[in-house]
Amino acid sequence: MEFKAGKKIYEGKAKILYETADPDLLIQEFKDDATAFDATKRGVIHDKGIVNNRISAVLFRTLEDRGVATHFVRLLGDRTMLVRRLAIIPIEVTVRNVVAGGMARTFGLEEGKRLKQPVYEIHYKSDPLHDPLMNEEHAVAMGLAAPEELATLKERSLRVNRYLIEFFSPKGIDLIDFKLEYGRYKGRIFLGDEISPDTCRFWEVGTGRKLDKDRFRRDLGGIEEAYQEMLKRVES
Amino acid sequence: MEFKAGKKIYEGKAKILYETADPDLLIQEFKDDATAFDATKRGVIHDKGIVNNRISAVLFRTLEDRGVATHFVRLLGDRTMLVRRLAIIPIEVTVRNVVAGGMARTFGLEEGKRLKQPVYEIHYKSDPLHDPLMNEEHAVAMGLAAPEELATLKERSLRVNRYLIEFFSPKGIDLIDFKLEYGRYKGRIFLGDEISPDTCRFWEVGTGRKLDKDRFRRDLGGIEEAYQEMLKRVES
Repeated sequence: MEFKAGKKIYEGKAKILYETADPDLLIQEFKDDATAFDATKRGVIHDKGIVNNRISAVLFRTLEDRGVATHFVRLLGDRTMLVRRLAIIPIEVTVRNVVAGGMARTFGLEEGKRLKQPVYEIHYKSDPLHDPLMNEEHAVAMGLAAPEELATLKERSLRVNRYLIEFFSPKGIDLIDFKLEYGRYKGRIFLGDEISPDTCRFWEVGTGRKLDKDRFRRDLGGIEEAYQEMLKRVES
Repeated sequence: MEFKAGKKIYEGKAKILYETADPDLLIQEFKDDATAFDATKRGVIHDKGIVNNRISAVLFRTLEDRGVATHFVRLLGDRTMLVRRLAIIPIEVTVRNVVAGGMARTFGLEEGKRLKQPVYEIHYKSDPLHDPLMNEEHAVAMGLAAPEELATLKERSLRVNRYLIEFFSPKGIDLIDFKLEYGRYKGRIFLGDEISPDTCRFWEVGTGRKLDKDRFRRDLGGIEEAYQEMLKRVES
């Protein structure tokens, strides 16, 4: 069966979703557009869409192989993949192995400090509110998810963390932290969105060289090279 | 035994702590100074120190009667109480029964919505960082408290919430939310700080009239009257 992009149902900062002839399936297209700091900083990272599509595909497959349900069905084109049509839960999950980014800023901690155990966070997915950190009781009170669903998100995300570390470690990549989104599909919870240098922090083992979107956020240069380097290692 | 204020060991926005001849005991003095929004707003609420000292004394006694360990020993003067010398845990606990203040602001919720069950929050006690919301994993990672201590804080605080609701309900006061601080003392955890219109939101049942520091924060007028009204009801 061939899948053609139908009606555009969502356009975000980095991705577009199109309907297909199958009501259960969508086409997810990855853009080159890059934004940071709630889209107050904007730019383009050449071929980012291609890199993120291919990296996400490999990582979703890797997770599926380990029993993690994801929305990924298969790659379609350079910048497109076929995905299940999830009802997205408006919660951004973050798992952290090393202090960086928001955790360093919020709590006045030094970036680079390795955590004794992974720190799991949930944030309310809301650009106007700047994706505030929340706890599970907030999420329940706000009707975002049921307590059992939140338990699933946590258990699942910590498992994803272990699998991703196992995947990246032999490739000389230190997985610092990452963001996940989940959705509901036919009564079950699936991992959605993407897993890429846009949504993870990757530091090269040994040198500490950043191979992720922080190069864009912090104007470190060598952005395209970093994304290509990650693609090379992921596909190696 | 008479207790005289010795060396001043701490002066905060609303209270001063003095040593006594007994190394285990301190004198806690309540000031009339009022601050809000990380002390960017400052003022004086006439006789607030007297009101908060007396209200806190009644509430600490009420909690002690129900088996909650507090730092309160006894009233000394108009504005002073004798307290155990705790090693304060730098975590501010908030318990919410109704959406208000920070929770409304952070998550874009309407103030006044009653929660189906109390929402428990912990914040990192840090003025320069604006007391950010945290979760228990942050607190453990930052070495602020052990997991067992955090479990105690939560269980204790939800119990305090039940006891305070039982106390205030017959007095026509709706306990909206409140902040607690805890400390370590001889290997156990004690409730410290104060429980007063500075640290709780009290709304009059029926009218919704605010009888707490929000009158100062939001320039609602009638501040002294609100504090005196709360004192009257607490001591009735």
